[in-house]
Amino acid sequence: MLTNWNPARMPEKDEMKLRLSTARKQLYDLQMKIKEHKIPVIVLFEGWGTSGKGSTISKVIRNIDPRFFKVVTMSEPTDEELRYPFLYRYFKEIPEAGKFTFLDSGWLEQICREHLEGKTDEKEYASRIESVRNFERQLTDNGYLVLKFFMQIEKKEQKEREQKLLENKDTRWRVSLFDQWENEHYKKCKKTFSKYMSDTNASSAPWYIIDAGDKKWAELQVMETLVSNIKVALQNQAHSVPILQNVFPLEPIPCLADIDLQDKILNDEEYKKELKQLQIELGKLHNKLYRKRIPVIITYEGWDAAGKGGNIKRITEALDPRGYEVQPIASPEPHEKARHYLWRFWTRLPKSGHVAIFDRTWYGRVMVERLEGFCSENDWQRAYNEINEFEKELKDWGAVIIKFWVQIDKDTQLARFQERQNNPEKQWKITDEDWRNREKWDEYEVAVNEMLQKTNTEYAPWHILESVDKKYARIKALKIVIEEITKYV
Amino acid sequence: MLTNWNPARMPEKDEMKLRLSTARKQLYDLQMKIKEHKIPVIVLFEGWGTSGKGSTISKVIRNIDPRFFKVVTMSEPTDEELRYPFLYRYFKEIPEAGKFTFLDSGWLEQICREHLEGKTDEKEYASRIESVRNFERQLTDNGYLVLKFFMQIEKKEQKEREQKLLENKDTRWRVSLFDQWENEHYKKCKKTFSKYMSDTNASSAPWYIIDAGDKKWAELQVMETLVSNIKVALQNQAHSVPILQNVFPLEPIPCLADIDLQDKILNDEEYKKELKQLQIELGKLHNKLYRKRIPVIITYEGWDAAGKGGNIKRITEALDPRGYEVQPIASPEPHEKARHYLWRFWTRLPKSGHVAIFDRTWYGRVMVERLEGFCSENDWQRAYNEINEFEKELKDWGAVIIKFWVQIDKDTQLARFQERQNNPEKQWKITDEDWRNREKWDEYEVAVNEMLQKTNTEYAPWHILESVDKKYARIKALKIVIEEITKYV
Repeated sequence: MLTNWNPARMPEKDEMKLRLSTARKQLYDLQMKIKEHKIPVIVLFEGWGTSGKGSTISKVIRNIDPRFFKVVTMSEPTDEELRYPFLYRYFKEIPEAGKFTFLDSGWLEQICREHLEGKTDEKEYASRIESVRNFERQLTDNGYLVLKFFMQIEKKEQKEREQKLLENKDTRWRVSLFDQWENEHYKKCKKTFSKYMSDTNASSAPWYIIDAGDKKWAELQVMETLVSNIKVALQNQAHSVPILQNVFPLEPIPCLADIDLQDKILNDEEYKKELKQLQIELGKLHNKLYRKRIPVIITYEGWDAAGKGGNIKRITEALDPRGYEVQPIASPEPHEKARHYLWRFWTRLPKSGHVAIFDRTWYGRVMVERLEGFCSENDWQRAYNEINEFEKELKDWGAVIIKFWVQIDKDTQLARFQERQNNPEKQWKITDEDWRNREKWDEYEVAVNEMLQKTNTEYAPWHILESVDKKYARIKALKIVIEEITKYV
Repeated sequence: MLTNWNPARMPEKDEMKLRLSTARKQLYDLQMKIKEHKIPVIVLFEGWGTSGKGSTISKVIRNIDPRFFKVVTMSEPTDEELRYPFLYRYFKEIPEAGKFTFLDSGWLEQICREHLEGKTDEKEYASRIESVRNFERQLTDNGYLVLKFFMQIEKKEQKEREQKLLENKDTRWRVSLFDQWENEHYKKCKKTFSKYMSDTNASSAPWYIIDAGDKKWAELQVMETLVSNIKVALQNQAHSVPILQNVFPLEPIPCLADIDLQDKILNDEEYKKELKQLQIELGKLHNKLYRKRIPVIITYEGWDAAGKGGNIKRITEALDPRGYEVQPIASPEPHEKARHYLWRFWTRLPKSGHVAIFDRTWYGRVMVERLEGFCSENDWQRAYNEINEFEKELKDWGAVIIKFWVQIDKDTQLARFQERQNNPEKQWKITDEDWRNREKWDEYEVAVNEMLQKTNTEYAPWHILESVDKKYARIKALKIVIEEITKYV
């Protein structure tokens, strides 16, 4: 893209002044509409070192109320950040509905740089491009406005700017070693940036190359692009988003009704013996995982009172608390609801070598959110694919993913509800909501079946835990966890 | 404490078994009461390397629902963490009301270790002890139950445990270089730990030394201490907390009524000229701050419509967006309200070299929370002192603190409210709440006067911005910011 790009004519001084003042006024007014229509906006500034990313951001934000935006500066990932999937530190920063996040460099810089430095080969580069495409599409599909600017300056211009900054000790820190390397290898870098932009130039999140040789002119281009895109976004809010074809490799999985719950029982003696042995085995595996820095994600979904809690406990009892965290997922809090629905899961991922156990998960999107109308039909239909992408991302990062559906029948649930109700110490475990959900059992069953069919991917299959006898389900879960982890250590 | 401690007699096997099972059952029941009474509990495990901190935690948490606790493992601070006050990473992890946080080592380890390694001298050590005392007291005063365990093992025992772990490649990572050093310098370390415990053995957050030579016995001691302390905490909830004497060095400051708002005006020409010069100057200082890694905290409080937003904007226009963040403070969200009221400010501190501008602040505790009854009288009365301590902590960390009160008179506010109401583009800026607050002007004035008198410390004094003419206030603010920063760079 960059290599065959032609800059537009820079307007005369008077025209520039007039247009700038118009754009500023418009942006000032539009920020209120953004707020009102609850549109989250991500503005990504990429480009050459010293091309004026920071200074352009600082001019743009003058027109926006400080309560409505955040500027995030991305430098090289820290050691801590390197222990997460590479998109983690970007996903973390996505704005709430009605607010802006301005990023001073982002995934273009990281991907191109690490590729230029030889840290990623062609295959890894291609996989990252795929991740970025999915990431940006997931954002725009879920109502985010994603604006991507590339600040373009010529080699000579960059050289001069760098030299000027290097001369003064208070500005020297602004020129990194990579900025200097970039200038020395300008042509090679340009080619890499250009390819990256072509690779990620989606219609829903296109690139805008900004002629950044003149600062005022650069500001004007950015401002006008921002303003016109916000206007479009405001008009497009009711725009429907296509449901992508589910192209992930799916495995067959039985319907809930076909799951045999009979005779899946264990007596106390067998249970105790197996439990002890399996927990010792898992404890040992946990040490290995830690040493080899493999992340593990275990997810639990299932009927109310199916025995998720007790099942999770039998897993965690075997683990060192320094290396795992249980993530109980309740209904989202306001700051979570205001963001992409996967945000609260991205931000709860384990770091490499750790185990995260999710007590309920992102599958809430296609169950409770679907049935209670917390999201639109379009939203939950799109979610199967989004979730498959999300789990693929985790898999490619190197995570072990183990997904459990804890299954009981309707009578068993009733018996357990009644027992909880009648036992003062367990009453806290049962709420009116549980009874209301129970009334919707049949609707849930339809949703669960669809979910299982559509997300039972080869790389992250579901495991059914028959839990009419909780002991049986616990032992089965432990065996599966051990088996899956063993494949990796 | 440690040097003159005598272990209790370890009970016989049968007795141990019985007592353990009782304690486990009690903890299981008590967790529900903790939840119900909304008590936040911090359980700190400190002690020798290989003394079994992690494994004891893992036994204790078996009795608690995973939704109600979090285990946090603290290792050496990262480079990122070192750019914040040393308590930052601990304050971040305090639990919500009704939940537990278990810490696998914490501030004892960090302080003693850095002192043993010669990273802190006696003076710095003393200042940290003071910080810890205030930190723990602030937590307990605000309803936190803080339990501190020290897991004690003898030199010989530690040596054997370390050797055993080092022999196996899957467990080798559990023994750090420091653990080994600790064993080699056991006596010296013991003295240091002992002194630290005496120094921080407050009645509201006392130390419990656990004889950790035998694992079951260690578990029993921890469990019984936990259970008995939770019972006490449940009985003590209505306990009143003494208001400490305000011993901070205070400067005199006029009452709001005595602030002369007349003739504090600037004409357009003077304003524009000064603004430009001052912003250029501030921009240069910002570079120096960044290079010297000095953190700056600028806070704004003032009447509604006093002109805080516009004032902040004139500051930020001069700054590089990579080095500052505006923190707009609205009413707390649920996850914030569930924690110590300073938590949401601790977690928003700038890192060294950065500027944080707070648009409203922790002073909400002694203004809106006081007047609207969002906290008890005891709570807000205690807050003056807590806030002085908090700001002292920031000052000692090396921060520049600049506190503004933006002052207007009642008539000016009315005029501005009316203008907002009549201007369609500004209507969003005015709400019913603003009108309600206006009715309480006199009560607020009393609260503000008390606040100014009680928190106008030498190290973090208030600055009054007379803002009937907003231009005047903006220029004055810029001058003060420049003056204060100049003292540091």
